[in-house]
Amino acid sequence: MEWARATCADGRIVTGVISEGMLHPRLYLGSDEATDMPEDLAAVTLLPPCVPGKFIGLWNNFHAAATRNNWTPPEHPLYFLKPDTSLSGPAATVTIPATAGRILFEGELGIVIGQTCRNISAEDAAAAIMGYTCVNDLTSIDILNADPSFPQWTRAKGFDGFGVIGPVIATGLDWQDLTIKVLVNGRERQSYPAADMIIPPSQIVSALSQDMTLNPCDVIACGTSVGARPVKAGDQVDVVIEGIGTLGVTMAAEETQG
Amino acid sequence: MEWARATCADGRIVTGVISEGMLHPRLYLGSDEATDMPEDLAAVTLLPPCVPGKFIGLWNNFHAAATRNNWTPPEHPLYFLKPDTSLSGPAATVTIPATAGRILFEGELGIVIGQTCRNISAEDAAAAIMGYTCVNDLTSIDILNADPSFPQWTRAKGFDGFGVIGPVIATGLDWQDLTIKVLVNGRERQSYPAADMIIPPSQIVSALSQDMTLNPCDVIACGTSVGARPVKAGDQVDVVIEGIGTLGVTMAAEETQG
Repeated sequence: MEWARATCADGRIVTGVISEGMLHPRLYLGSDEATDMPEDLAAVTLLPPCVPGKFIGLWNNFHAAATRNNWTPPEHPLYFLKPDTSLSGPAATVTIPATAGRILFEGELGIVIGQTCRNISAEDAAAAIMGYTCVNDLTSIDILNADPSFPQWTRAKGFDGFGVIGPVIATGLDWQDLTIKVLVNGRERQSYPAADMIIPPSQIVSALSQDMTLNPCDVIACGTSVGARPVKAGDQVDVVIEGIGTLGVTMAAEETQG
Repeated sequence: MEWARATCADGRIVTGVISEGMLHPRLYLGSDEATDMPEDLAAVTLLPPCVPGKFIGLWNNFHAAATRNNWTPPEHPLYFLKPDTSLSGPAATVTIPATAGRILFEGELGIVIGQTCRNISAEDAAAAIMGYTCVNDLTSIDILNADPSFPQWTRAKGFDGFGVIGPVIATGLDWQDLTIKVLVNGRERQSYPAADMIIPPSQIVSALSQDMTLNPCDVIACGTSVGARPVKAGDQVDVVIEGIGTLGVTMAAEETQG
């Protein structure tokens, strides 16, 4: 099943299920209760498929990247938070702030939480995962490492629009079958198997639920692997995961005064 | 003026202005529009005075702490985010998770944003600050430093209830006059002047607004100074800022099975 959120032609924002080219509005994400009449997908504008209370991103969660960079695989997920205002969705234009320096795309698999959970086992975590989405965890590599005393994860990954998710939340997938690809201006620049993950989704959710309560719509980006690269204004950056879809954004330069 | 948020005896949650022992409900934080009849403060239960979309915490923002720890004063605020689920308020009981190790209190001055702002000057930032609140930025010092490759700011500061704010948002204060004190079981354990701040509130807000859009109700904890100490289950921890009030919590041990 594919869930999406969209603005309709009349301005209403609806959450619903996609079927046969139509978006079927539901009372809330995961609800069986139909509300309005179906909308033609061609007549709506897709938004981020949910609005997470927490948007968590993992670092160092792929064997290939850990090996290449000589990182020790972590025992517990190593993570940061992306702010609410970083959220953006399908077909967004993401502005590169003049102060942000070099920006990398990072194509990632995103877990979407479906149930409130705290202190749950990896077995129970599987049921708490509603589905998966594509993530582009845009990052200023210059800001991340600008201060030797304090790695600026939040600031580097927190600019408006730098947390791209979508186009849909797909349910019923086996994450181990997925491949995360990123195309820049149509050219494949990143491609890695989700199965190379160090800490798998159910263990990520279980471990994070030891640290904090997770709620429906929370998003956890599973980290990226090798191949993240700089992007520049004008680039079209597509994260492609077969079974979920294509999440494309256009990078833009900040308009400066004068 | 003092703003508070509270649960009334009938279960309604209201935001309003405190005057003469009464809470006068308003349409929203900062609004002039009265809604319901005033509630006797003695008959309501105070909540965190706002629900921030972003709860930002600064590190290394006091000269005394920087000098003592041999930290270089930063040019730009160095910060992390506390998750939505870490929010707690006056008279909360905060559970110390069994996995969290040693917990420090950190008494801090909290800035509450009153207007949406992006890319604003320090001059304009003063107007975007609605007021100030007390913050107890509870931190697991063991988790912060557990992994040498990745300082775990988010995890160390993100446990449920570890972001304590309140009891009110006070407007019209001059932050330079304030002293931040923390009492543990009635004994003063931390006391430092806000005027020792390295990056002052208007410059913090201006700098953060270069990184991301700030919205009404966002909270920015200005960092702590010397004197943060471990707390244990059973401790009563009060952050006291004259002009704002006393923000007290009780620390509790996690109940374990068996």
